Amino acid sequence: MNTNPARGMRDFLPSDVRKREYVIGIIKEVYQKYGFEPLETPSVENLETLTGKYGEEGNQLIFKILKRGEKLDLSEGEKGLSDLALRYDLTVPLARVVANYKNELPKFFKRYQIQPVWRADRPARGRFREFYQCDVDAIGSSSMVVEAELISAVCEILERLGFEDFEIRLNHREILYGLLDAAGVPLEKQTEALVALDKIDKIMREGVEEEFQARNIPNEAGNKLLNWLEELANKEGLEISNDLRNSVEQIYDITQLSADSDFKKLAFNHYILIQLENYIGNNSNISGIKELRNVLQFTRKKRIRTKIEPSLARGLSYYTGAIIEIVLTKGDFSGSIAGGGRYDSLIGMFGKEQIPACGLSIGLERILFVMEERGMFPTELQTNSADVMVTIWNEESIAESLKLANELRSQGLRVLVYPEADKLGKQFKYAGQINVPFVCILGENELAENKVAVKNMISGEQEIVAREDVARKIK
Amino acid sequence: MNTNPARGMRDFLPSDVRKREYVIGIIKEVYQKYGFEPLETPSVENLETLTGKYGEEGNQLIFKILKRGEKLDLSEGEKGLSDLALRYDLTVPLARVVANYKNELPKFFKRYQIQPVWRADRPARGRFREFYQCDVDAIGSSSMVVEAELISAVCEILERLGFEDFEIRLNHREILYGLLDAAGVPLEKQTEALVALDKIDKIMREGVEEEFQARNIPNEAGNKLLNWLEELANKEGLEISNDLRNSVEQIYDITQLSADSDFKKLAFNHYILIQLENYIGNNSNISGIKELRNVLQFTRKKRIRTKIEPSLARGLSYYTGAIIEIVLTKGDFSGSIAGGGRYDSLIGMFGKEQIPACGLSIGLERILFVMEERGMFPTELQTNSADVMVTIWNEESIAESLKLANELRSQGLRVLVYPEADKLGKQFKYAGQINVPFVCILGENELAENKVAVKNMISGEQEIVAREDVARKIK
Repeated sequence: MNTNPARGMRDFLPSDVRKREYVIGIIKEVYQKYGFEPLETPSVENLETLTGKYGEEGNQLIFKILKRGEKLDLSEGEKGLSDLALRYDLTVPLARVVANYKNELPKFFKRYQIQPVWRADRPARGRFREFYQCDVDAIGSSSMVVEAELISAVCEILERLGFEDFEIRLNHREILYGLLDAAGVPLEKQTEALVALDKIDKIMREGVEEEFQARNIPNEAGNKLLNWLEELANKEGLEISNDLRNSVEQIYDITQLSADSDFKKLAFNHYILIQLENYIGNNSNISGIKELRNVLQFTRKKRIRTKIEPSLARGLSYYTGAIIEIVLTKGDFSGSIAGGGRYDSLIGMFGKEQIPACGLSIGLERILFVMEERGMFPTELQTNSADVMVTIWNEESIAESLKLANELRSQGLRVLVYPEADKLGKQFKYAGQINVPFVCILGENELAENKVAVKNMISGEQEIVAREDVARKIK
Repeated sequence: MNTNPARGMRDFLPSDVRKREYVIGIIKEVYQKYGFEPLETPSVENLETLTGKYGEEGNQLIFKILKRGEKLDLSEGEKGLSDLALRYDLTVPLARVVANYKNELPKFFKRYQIQPVWRADRPARGRFREFYQCDVDAIGSSSMVVEAELISAVCEILERLGFEDFEIRLNHREILYGLLDAAGVPLEKQTEALVALDKIDKIMREGVEEEFQARNIPNEAGNKLLNWLEELANKEGLEISNDLRNSVEQIYDITQLSADSDFKKLAFNHYILIQLENYIGNNSNISGIKELRNVLQFTRKKRIRTKIEPSLARGLSYYTGAIIEIVLTKGDFSGSIAGGGRYDSLIGMFGKEQIPACGLSIGLERILFVMEERGMFPTELQTNSADVMVTIWNEESIAESLKLANELRSQGLRVLVYPEADKLGKQFKYAGQINVPFVCILGENELAENKVAVKNMISGEQEIVAREDVARKIK
């Protein structure tokens, strides 16, 4: 019989679980410090809750659950075979929960949720069919205070885990639509244009041009858009004019910017927003620019890691405002380690009321993958399963060995008991294999004198210790 | 749109999650103290891994996952529609893992696993389709040290959680088969007889007799069996003869039995084992009696909670040796809160080698249910989401309020920021609704003087505090 986990799924042996719990522990701690509260939703949702929320591609990747027993109706083909599905992300269940428990939840509901999701994706290196998301969302406010606090919390988590080379990429759905409008991309083509544009990091300008053509985006409009974006990208590292400097100083509190390079980054972001304002012109989409400016104003220290990225689109269809992606800038790891944005219309799909919302999601598997590659786990995690192993002298003394183990446990030690009366040499060998630092022997002499022989497995030294002193000695 | 969780599934709001995490935290801590290590397996298993492991009834309750895309073949009926399924328990995945990673795992593998399982059961009060199991298993040894340590660990968890009225019911599959043999129940009817016998607590002797008849168990054999069990049950509270007393003192170390009633319990268990030995006679199944005697010898203090229960059968088909059930004895909660046993043949179904194994599973949902009913959660769990809320004075001071929040967080406080510039009265009202004990106000005067107004929401007092002293003041 095949004993491997199912395709795209993983078993986590003890050393894996310890690493996962270490990272999850830090994530929870920081989220709580920012006033977020824990939420958990079921792994299984009604199929109708999930369908139509993730775009066409997402829909295909939902794991559906076969109906049970007599309910199964094969006459309709695939329809009628399933009414339940596995959770695909943590945002749609949150929206359902907010609509369902509106009266029990506070007006501003700040929640975190750390649970697995399932996608029937083709498995690849670092891509699995079951993986954890660590989501943090704030419900109920349209203020950019929300975006600023979310970014701040996730940055603090990454710093606490030891990451130094991350960048927060920031854009806004309204800016994107404003640019598409201004460039002349027809309304009905804009969603498709965004799907193509989202790939510019990977397939470069040429690739996007081909995709535009394949999708019948008017040539002139597509070129205008790509020219603008290229123009902005080329401005990176620009000399800061006096006008620009004055404008930055007027709008932002710069007292916390320590280095000149930090000022330059802020000035460049400010410049990009001004240019975008010029391109888009005086239309309603301009509020997106004001919002991103607010985010820069509110994030202070974190904004030196922030970069306005006008080509950033992100795949999910439910975003309505700011979109955020956090990427690592060093090493060969490409792709984001966290991302999210504002989705002010999603909750309204479940309830009568439109409730504004914004969230970020940390990809736990990617974080773990990079931390492993870079050797970022603290050495304390390579812990053994116990502080001490108690041996069994003979069949008659088993109960005494178990009693000693419980005495040591009650004094706070993690204690393993060798489960069988076996040759002492074999018991020592086993203790060595599993790296237990101390072994206790309770032979007939020791038992008679109320003492214990304690062997230090690292130094090899063995000592006779009064029974009541064993725990202290080992600690 | 329906916003309820799917049938038999539950959402856990923050106060629920806190309670669940409190209980899980204690379970993990104790398991680790006994030298058990964490394991996690995927929620989704290959269907063939699960089928045929849980008996006919269990098979029906497995949630199957629909095949994706072009693979779907309707021509074969239900067959061919599914190759994956949701995890049904944590024992079968463990057996698969042990067979798969044999060379990476220690010879004696002690693992705990706390994860949800799914069963397509009819939902009822306290019965859900997604629920957590907290399993602890020891692999690789046939010694009753394993049973004793498992019982000891689970007892310690229950005590730590505050339970006082639990009883450990103990039986052995070999004793059951020995009794059936000796009573004359034919081999091919024994499994059915056990299924009926398992219900004796609920349907009483009359009910079991009816089931025996319905299943064509020979009348005489069935009666003989039930007479024996009745005879044993009636002996509860028997006077302890001198012979019995001597026999107990010879076999068990009784120095740790403080009360006379504890001695009586042990003596009664000893008596039951002697009677069972007499009924079964001199056949191979008698080793089960020796093993239960060992468990009583090894569990010491815990054995005063132990009761040999010759009618205990437990449903799952994979048990081969000791079977264990932990029940609450007070209140109207019926049913076990933990259970398990020895399954020495299960791992061999996955690998070439038979590896002995034994485990216990704590039912998290039942524990939580009873703790809620009995008011057993510590009051600290009714915590609020933050230690302090920072208000927003006006649009211009948002960045300063966020800065103050981060200062307080860096000093270890959990800090909420009211997300919008709003009337101060509304902000206070909100702080009151969500029970935050302190509120910080950073008005223009305070900002100019580098001070903060701190309001104690319980006493209503407000105080102007130097900015650097705010965290200390609140703590």
